[in-house]
Amino acid sequence: MTSNSTICAVSTVPGAGGIAVIRISGKEALSITDKIYEPVKKTTSFVRQETHTLTFGKIMNNENILDEVIVAVFRAPNSYTGEDAVEITCHGSIYIQQEILRLLIKNGCRLAKPGEFTQRSFLNGKMDLSQAEAVADLVASASTASHRMAMNQMRGGFSKELQNLRSQLLNFVSMIELELDFGEENVEFADRSQLLSLALNIKLTITKLVKSFQLGNAIKNGIPVVIVGETNVGKSTLLNHLLNEERAIVSEIHGTTRDTIEDVISISGISFRLIDTAGLRDTGNEIEILGIERTYQKIDQASIVVWMIDATQFSEKIENVAEKIIPKTKNKRLIIVINKIDKLSTEERLVLDDEFLPQIPAKRIYLSAKYKQNTTELEEALIKAADIPKLNENDVVVSNIRHYEALSKALESINRVEKGLKKAISGDFIAQDIRECMHYLGEITGEISTDEVLGNIFKNFCIGK
Amino acid sequence: MTSNSTICAVSTVPGAGGIAVIRISGKEALSITDKIYEPVKKTTSFVRQETHTLTFGKIMNNENILDEVIVAVFRAPNSYTGEDAVEITCHGSIYIQQEILRLLIKNGCRLAKPGEFTQRSFLNGKMDLSQAEAVADLVASASTASHRMAMNQMRGGFSKELQNLRSQLLNFVSMIELELDFGEENVEFADRSQLLSLALNIKLTITKLVKSFQLGNAIKNGIPVVIVGETNVGKSTLLNHLLNEERAIVSEIHGTTRDTIEDVISISGISFRLIDTAGLRDTGNEIEILGIERTYQKIDQASIVVWMIDATQFSEKIENVAEKIIPKTKNKRLIIVINKIDKLSTEERLVLDDEFLPQIPAKRIYLSAKYKQNTTELEEALIKAADIPKLNENDVVVSNIRHYEALSKALESINRVEKGLKKAISGDFIAQDIRECMHYLGEITGEISTDEVLGNIFKNFCIGK
Repeated sequence: MTSNSTICAVSTVPGAGGIAVIRISGKEALSITDKIYEPVKKTTSFVRQETHTLTFGKIMNNENILDEVIVAVFRAPNSYTGEDAVEITCHGSIYIQQEILRLLIKNGCRLAKPGEFTQRSFLNGKMDLSQAEAVADLVASASTASHRMAMNQMRGGFSKELQNLRSQLLNFVSMIELELDFGEENVEFADRSQLLSLALNIKLTITKLVKSFQLGNAIKNGIPVVIVGETNVGKSTLLNHLLNEERAIVSEIHGTTRDTIEDVISISGISFRLIDTAGLRDTGNEIEILGIERTYQKIDQASIVVWMIDATQFSEKIENVAEKIIPKTKNKRLIIVINKIDKLSTEERLVLDDEFLPQIPAKRIYLSAKYKQNTTELEEALIKAADIPKLNENDVVVSNIRHYEALSKALESINRVEKGLKKAISGDFIAQDIRECMHYLGEITGEISTDEVLGNIFKNFCIGK
Repeated sequence: MTSNSTICAVSTVPGAGGIAVIRISGKEALSITDKIYEPVKKTTSFVRQETHTLTFGKIMNNENILDEVIVAVFRAPNSYTGEDAVEITCHGSIYIQQEILRLLIKNGCRLAKPGEFTQRSFLNGKMDLSQAEAVADLVASASTASHRMAMNQMRGGFSKELQNLRSQLLNFVSMIELELDFGEENVEFADRSQLLSLALNIKLTITKLVKSFQLGNAIKNGIPVVIVGETNVGKSTLLNHLLNEERAIVSEIHGTTRDTIEDVISISGISFRLIDTAGLRDTGNEIEILGIERTYQKIDQASIVVWMIDATQFSEKIENVAEKIIPKTKNKRLIIVINKIDKLSTEERLVLDDEFLPQIPAKRIYLSAKYKQNTTELEEALIKAADIPKLNENDVVVSNIRHYEALSKALESINRVEKGLKKAISGDFIAQDIRECMHYLGEITGEISTDEVLGNIFKNFCIGK
């Protein structure tokens, strides 16, 4: 499966920095490096350099010294890719990085494609496909939870479970297919009640994994939070406050299916994806309806709805808005934020507590976004509403849409197996459904893969990984 | 001279990438790493790990795996800093990088200050001060010439020359001071004619170095090029063309003594710093004078003046502008660019050739910035006007303003030595001037340094270098 070419790329973040690392992998990794590298201490020829050692020396561009570098050698199979590999740690000037790449290419390397080192690692059996995919998730992870999830997946917890299910199915399908070989003798090598029990067990496991996708997706991409409310209730002040706090990791993610850019914040190691709403406007009935329509769509995308109200602007109108918004939040967590409490006396606030929408059983937070009063209470409420369980070392959570889709299809197949067994249908139909289930499970770990699937997976990696 | 603390920092470019390298240096580098690192193959205790070896293992945050990493060990004195050092190559997620730093700090490291690894390298005698300064230049170098200059300086070519001069002076001053010990006996251990010959030799060498600063500065910061001309002659079109070409490395540098941002382009490995002018305007005599005043100032900063003229807009006015601009370009290279030739017939162009300012002996380039006609001719003219000699391995060029100032002062001292010798003044005065010269030379290599000088040098380094 391995390619013959030797590839190279800068594996550290692009740009000028203290140091940079250039990775080379392939059969000629050492011999190509040898052409441009002169170790200071020449005890042995560089091509015979031992694995897992470091040498100090010079990268030469003909007779000119390009840089003084440290060169690490990893010999197959004990490298990231499973091939012979060299890592050159050079001074982090862009010029030096480019020149070293140029020299390597001139001497027989080619530039690595995105994710090609990891792809080779997969093709050489160093990791399965879901582990390879976890490498990209690991690099992208920006919160404790997403990091833990990617790390668990990279360490193979996920794959082991699927491979285990798959091998059990293989046992059964082999026996059923053996029965079919015996044709009309009507033997049963595969115990149907045992198989049913296995199918139910597999169904349970896959269902658990499929269900975990909601959590996995929330952890990976941030829990979608929509902040709704009329204009001028202080939404943007609150948003800025949440975004500008130093403890929050603020980043922009481009939605995969949207054109908008959303803000992601991290509170206590959990990512929240803040979905902006234009704000409900009070300029006439028709426009308000349009505003609510738009807001409905946003609410649909969210797990948590923060409804913001101006404490100084209570009126019957709010009850009308409530009547429209509340039904839409049925399967969501609703947090009602009453802002601008700095403008209220203690007495006024107590009245509010009693009189405002007592029929709505949602968490209420009285705060002042402007003066940052009680805003930590909102953060705590968000953490609570997120309801992210603390992941342990062996918790298996599906966060990859490709895995989710394959699991969903595997679940359909195993359902058919279950029904078939209950109806005692012919072994060849059951075998076909088992094979289908195995196919989908195999797609996840890469036991079954196509160039197209691999291409789609690795094109999203960075070059050098 | 070495500090007791063990320091750590991310040494690669900040951000999320394929991999990142965290550097640890100090007496406890291995023992602190040992607290958070579990090698997969435990053949020996990590603290006894051999130098220049690599191991694969896990970074542990208590019982949780933070990352799978490669750990490099460098033992004193064979490391960058000269101290025990460890380099952890981790997955390049920002979260992982931050967490590893946090764990290291929790276990006894402190975060490195900017340039502190290089500073320790200097303090531990691994490199002299001018070599340490060259490390920062090397990282920042973006052209072949600036890279070569920094590399030569880092490899010590510069220091050796200065140390050689200094040790020759030391011989003489010792002998002169010995004479002084003998007081009135009027002996002469130091041969005055030999000393004069040395002083003249040193003067020659330092003068050469001082003069090289103009070249060094041009190579390091780019050759200042000012483009002058009336508005609408196509200056910005030309600038954009020069800046947007793929072969040009475009960057912004913040001037050290200016508020403006200048564009630097690289043509054939030479950097040019393009100085923008607001453009001369034709809205009345007074304003034109102001415009020319501003342009004068810009011309003063430049080595090369590109005067741009619209081929379709010739008039007597241009001769007036020429009369004002030309005298200011006396010690500069002047290139006259006649733009918009696409609008001229061949005949018109020939007439122009004959009639336009025949008395000015400057290079003329007829081009069309819009249609990119003859623009490479301009680039070639810039390279020629830059007149940067091709640097060889051992060429010593001063590019650092600190070195330039110290050398200028050393030159003054050695001039006094020369005069004193010619006037046969008392040995103690000569000795004082020689000591002063030695002091300035010593400042460059760091044989003489203060905390303040070191602080100023290393504060401009990046953290992790």
